[in-house]
Amino acid sequence: MKFRRSGRLVDMTNHLLLHPQHLVSLTFFAERYDSAKSSISEDLTIIKQTFEQQGIGTLVTVAGAAGGVKYVPLVGEEEANSLVQTLCGVIANPDRLLPGGYLYLTDILGNPNMVSQIGKIFASIYANRKIDVVMTVATKGIPLAYAVASFLDVPVVIVRRDTKVTEGPTVSINYVSGSTKRIQTMVLAKRSLQEGSNVLIIDDFMKAGGTINGMVSMLEEFKATLVGIGVLVESDEDIEERLVDEYISLVKLTDVNVKEKQIEVSEGNYFSYLNEIKIEDEQEEEK
Amino acid sequence: MKFRRSGRLVDMTNHLLLHPQHLVSLTFFAERYDSAKSSISEDLTIIKQTFEQQGIGTLVTVAGAAGGVKYVPLVGEEEANSLVQTLCGVIANPDRLLPGGYLYLTDILGNPNMVSQIGKIFASIYANRKIDVVMTVATKGIPLAYAVASFLDVPVVIVRRDTKVTEGPTVSINYVSGSTKRIQTMVLAKRSLQEGSNVLIIDDFMKAGGTINGMVSMLEEFKATLVGIGVLVESDEDIEERLVDEYISLVKLTDVNVKEKQIEVSEGNYFSYLNEIKIEDEQEEEK
Repeated sequence: MKFRRSGRLVDMTNHLLLHPQHLVSLTFFAERYDSAKSSISEDLTIIKQTFEQQGIGTLVTVAGAAGGVKYVPLVGEEEANSLVQTLCGVIANPDRLLPGGYLYLTDILGNPNMVSQIGKIFASIYANRKIDVVMTVATKGIPLAYAVASFLDVPVVIVRRDTKVTEGPTVSINYVSGSTKRIQTMVLAKRSLQEGSNVLIIDDFMKAGGTINGMVSMLEEFKATLVGIGVLVESDEDIEERLVDEYISLVKLTDVNVKEKQIEVSEGNYFSYLNEIKIEDEQEEEK
Repeated sequence: MKFRRSGRLVDMTNHLLLHPQHLVSLTFFAERYDSAKSSISEDLTIIKQTFEQQGIGTLVTVAGAAGGVKYVPLVGEEEANSLVQTLCGVIANPDRLLPGGYLYLTDILGNPNMVSQIGKIFASIYANRKIDVVMTVATKGIPLAYAVASFLDVPVVIVRRDTKVTEGPTVSINYVSGSTKRIQTMVLAKRSLQEGSNVLIIDDFMKAGGTINGMVSMLEEFKATLVGIGVLVESDEDIEERLVDEYISLVKLTDVNVKEKQIEVSEGNYFSYLNEIKIEDEQEEEK
């Protein structure tokens, strides 16, 4: 079927958006639209310009016989800032406070559009790292982990707190919860994670970091490598010692007073992380 | 900023795909691109044609002052058939068999792209129904529920088997598991579902239907209305009586022999459901 440029642009945009981080050969598009590769190249230039200008991401071209083009989802600093400010405003509502200094986030995490936007920020941070799989722990981190994974084009593995018959053989570890100091168990299906995988850990909430620390221990059992840790909300309330060093958070609870029903919310360490990256890049250039 | 048609087509396609079932006014696009509404209308005609021709979905135009255009995601019968056949082939692998006639589906449900395609089929079935929320039960149904919800532009609520401190006050019900006949408990956070909501239930696996039946009972507690039930895989193995009448399944396990390591897999009732709809439509037209 012969396509005009306008039809091609619409369908190519859809195809690229549906397959982020996935290399598509020019031949694929040329055959799909019965068009010359030179026309396809021009189409891709238009799409790349628009994606970059509108903050959708970029197209990366890989030369050679095995080459092609891939859509890399990116979130600009301005857009990320706007989303984080919105989140801070929504999260600062004292009605969210639950006993123990926990926070009701179910409505935010129940909104697929919001979750997708948050996921795109984390995927944007790790867009150039080699990641094989996104890991999270059941239940609340799951939607966010899927959102990140869909922009990275990798699978999700879910660590559970209980063994289910539908998982098959599992590996189980004990870990100490950072806040309650109690010993807890987490399990992961043996077939769900391959040895040597590069893993990005994503979760919705982190206090002392015991659960995330547990996941890091789980990685050792699978001889897997930790690439990074991303959390939506971190809280430093009632924490003697943070068990996790390097992580990226979007929102930070600095002061939680359950009695007075007050929460103080600020942006997480994401933007200072961005600045560090910038300084590193500048130093690279000076060299 | 002034846009040429080619840039508009790329950005409008992205915007519409990101906001399924969401009415966007022509004024929004006209201002976004500093273009005449007549040009925007022509753009939308091109996008609609391409979406329909390529099986992406359609654009529905709503006339009047409060009008606009919305993207309705649809999956054609051919595309759905191809996905279901792929799923049947993947699921028929006897290595998936687990004790009790359960099936290892974690790898399929861990693939965001696959989950998204499955979700689009269910969203396509219910595209013209009034749905306020998608409900599922933790843990394995969650990614599928999010995929469906993202194409319907509605939130997800997650029923749990245990009470978590981060949920706030909950409503709890007891139900009888259809397969094991044991009494089990499920809970739902009070603030997560509004009274009178129209609910679509989505789950990954159904045997006798006890868990889904439990969710239906939960709906009564919230005075909510059941719109439909969608399951990825149904199994009629060892079932004396199905507890759920009306549901749509994509894949059906007809014969599971754990001892012999054999599974017989066929397509679910989805296509017979499609045929019923067609016959109803024809009867409508004859009247």
